[in-house]
Amino acid sequence: MFYAVVPAGGSGTRLWPLSRAGHPKFLHALTGTRSSLLQATVERLGPLSSPPNTYVVTGAAHAAAVARQLPELPEENILVEPAPRDSCPAIALAAALIARRDPVAVMGSFAADHLVRDPQRFVEVIRDAITSAEAGRIMTVGITPTQPETGYGYIELGSPVGIGSARHVERFKEKPTAEAARRYLESGRYLWNAGIFVWRVDVFLDELRRQQPDIYAGVTAIADAWAGPDREDVLARAWPTMPKIAVDYAVMEGAAAAGKVATVPGDFGWTDVGDFHTLGELIASDDEGNVVLGSGDGGQQPAVLLHDSKGVVVVAHGDRLVSVLGVDNVIVVDTPDAVLVCSRERAQEVKALVDALRDRGDHDLI
Amino acid sequence: MFYAVVPAGGSGTRLWPLSRAGHPKFLHALTGTRSSLLQATVERLGPLSSPPNTYVVTGAAHAAAVARQLPELPEENILVEPAPRDSCPAIALAAALIARRDPVAVMGSFAADHLVRDPQRFVEVIRDAITSAEAGRIMTVGITPTQPETGYGYIELGSPVGIGSARHVERFKEKPTAEAARRYLESGRYLWNAGIFVWRVDVFLDELRRQQPDIYAGVTAIADAWAGPDREDVLARAWPTMPKIAVDYAVMEGAAAAGKVATVPGDFGWTDVGDFHTLGELIASDDEGNVVLGSGDGGQQPAVLLHDSKGVVVVAHGDRLVSVLGVDNVIVVDTPDAVLVCSRERAQEVKALVDALRDRGDHDLI
Repeated sequence: MFYAVVPAGGSGTRLWPLSRAGHPKFLHALTGTRSSLLQATVERLGPLSSPPNTYVVTGAAHAAAVARQLPELPEENILVEPAPRDSCPAIALAAALIARRDPVAVMGSFAADHLVRDPQRFVEVIRDAITSAEAGRIMTVGITPTQPETGYGYIELGSPVGIGSARHVERFKEKPTAEAARRYLESGRYLWNAGIFVWRVDVFLDELRRQQPDIYAGVTAIADAWAGPDREDVLARAWPTMPKIAVDYAVMEGAAAAGKVATVPGDFGWTDVGDFHTLGELIASDDEGNVVLGSGDGGQQPAVLLHDSKGVVVVAHGDRLVSVLGVDNVIVVDTPDAVLVCSRERAQEVKALVDALRDRGDHDLI
Repeated sequence: MFYAVVPAGGSGTRLWPLSRAGHPKFLHALTGTRSSLLQATVERLGPLSSPPNTYVVTGAAHAAAVARQLPELPEENILVEPAPRDSCPAIALAAALIARRDPVAVMGSFAADHLVRDPQRFVEVIRDAITSAEAGRIMTVGITPTQPETGYGYIELGSPVGIGSARHVERFKEKPTAEAARRYLESGRYLWNAGIFVWRVDVFLDELRRQQPDIYAGVTAIADAWAGPDREDVLARAWPTMPKIAVDYAVMEGAAAAGKVATVPGDFGWTDVGDFHTLGELIASDDEGNVVLGSGDGGQQPAVLLHDSKGVVVVAHGDRLVSVLGVDNVIVVDTPDAVLVCSRERAQEVKALVDALRDRGDHDLI
């Protein structure tokens, strides 16, 4: 029995103004399909995990949207955080609740806003990871790198574990410089860290207790109270005391140092759809290299008029016509209350606009 | 007694999507002031012509907007064309009606959508033209050229008339090639044709009868019926028979060939605000060469966020934030139902987008 946990947080500021704090990246259909990234994530997990065994952990602001996007998910499987505390408390709470149902269950954690082009291969790789996790390993799924990417963290491979393709993880590496990324790629000993983790809940909770006793104590108290009348009180009291930390730093790095982490290389066409330039590369372009994305709510073709323009990415998310004349390699994002015009090579810097808006108090637009 | 006539027609397609068939250029405040181009035109004529002596000729679609923008104008001075017939029938009708009030009145015709930076000098130049017109000349006001402009028609100067600075007009010249425009500028014998005309109505109507007998007959019949109960019937019957033609071709060229036209050179900072690039050059820019124009209805500052961008013209005519990141020399026009992104050097070609929209039947957006 496999349990899937989907932490659905983060606002995706590099995809502003499409992605907003109030309607973040994972709620959007970004790739021209009808499914949002969250829906696609849960669909992809379908062969591994039934709806009663699938959990989403999300913020109070997005609980209603998540519930509506995933009508097949039982209400009690939508775990609502009282406040954002990054991924460790979110994943730990899910692990503690799953452990109440099955103390040696294997669970996996999967970001809500990533994209996978080969879902069948994805399932095969996760099944490999599950096999190693059942044997007591803390597993990650590393992505076989295809270019010297500086936007991702890396996993340094060690010796084979002896089960399938699994390899020990020497250590996790922060986002590298361009030079380091090139060395990583050439060496063949590094994988991209896609933030996919698979483990037995008892193994993970032991490691959590060892490395993050405060979070362990907090989620244990919350899980103990979950089925009873005090759930809200305990949650409200315990949650704010949790350190705000990602599971990578909180648990995985320490576990790797202790030799407890292994990885299965994945080659299922993963991407984190981090910015509009990347998004443009994912979608089939026309003869001029132009890509047009509509609102994704199906039916209507977005109204776009491109004239003597090449390599343009248009995201038409309002109900306006977007027209481009004689401008190349530009991103145009139209939403009901904000328009972005950005060169493709500066797509990663869109976050700076969000920061500027925050600085000047334009919170409505963030 | 001087009469001012302002033909308010043309949709200004090079200023799309700001300028529309339903809300054309002349109804917009384009330069950051509270006055629309039409209002600025009438204000500028104030020292020359009182409201009862000022006429606007416009299409049925714009009559209400014109009436509201110019509350001081008597209702009967807003002449509404049943159908667009270009400038000659419009100006001829005004001339015929003015002739009923004063058979030897001097009138001037002034486009509703041009810009003048020195209104005081403008008045002085028009007064010069009036003096020559009173003596029976058909007058134009030519603009002293400041660059080898290929977007305007030209006036070729002849010998001095002997009244003030007035010169005979040898002939009117179509928009020149770049090479010809350079020669025109160097020779000092050419002025830009700004479409400003001043004449005694009897002199003009005689010339109209000679060159355009159909238009003469039409406007005479309409003017005869104007004050009586048959005005609408006569207008509805006579108007559609009029040839669709500009006064330049219909009357001025022939009058110049007959030696009846003279001109007064004008140096009052005239421009026709033809496209967004030109518009950007008219407005003071910030240190990065960026120009931001709001909706012009006063009060609120447009919400614009420019980051590492130079030479950008933003026209923020919706209520959205417009943000530009890392793109230079681009025009961004935001309106409630259409967004335009265009390189400044292609600004003249915006008309092509309007043509494309017409071809595909998007009439709502034109």
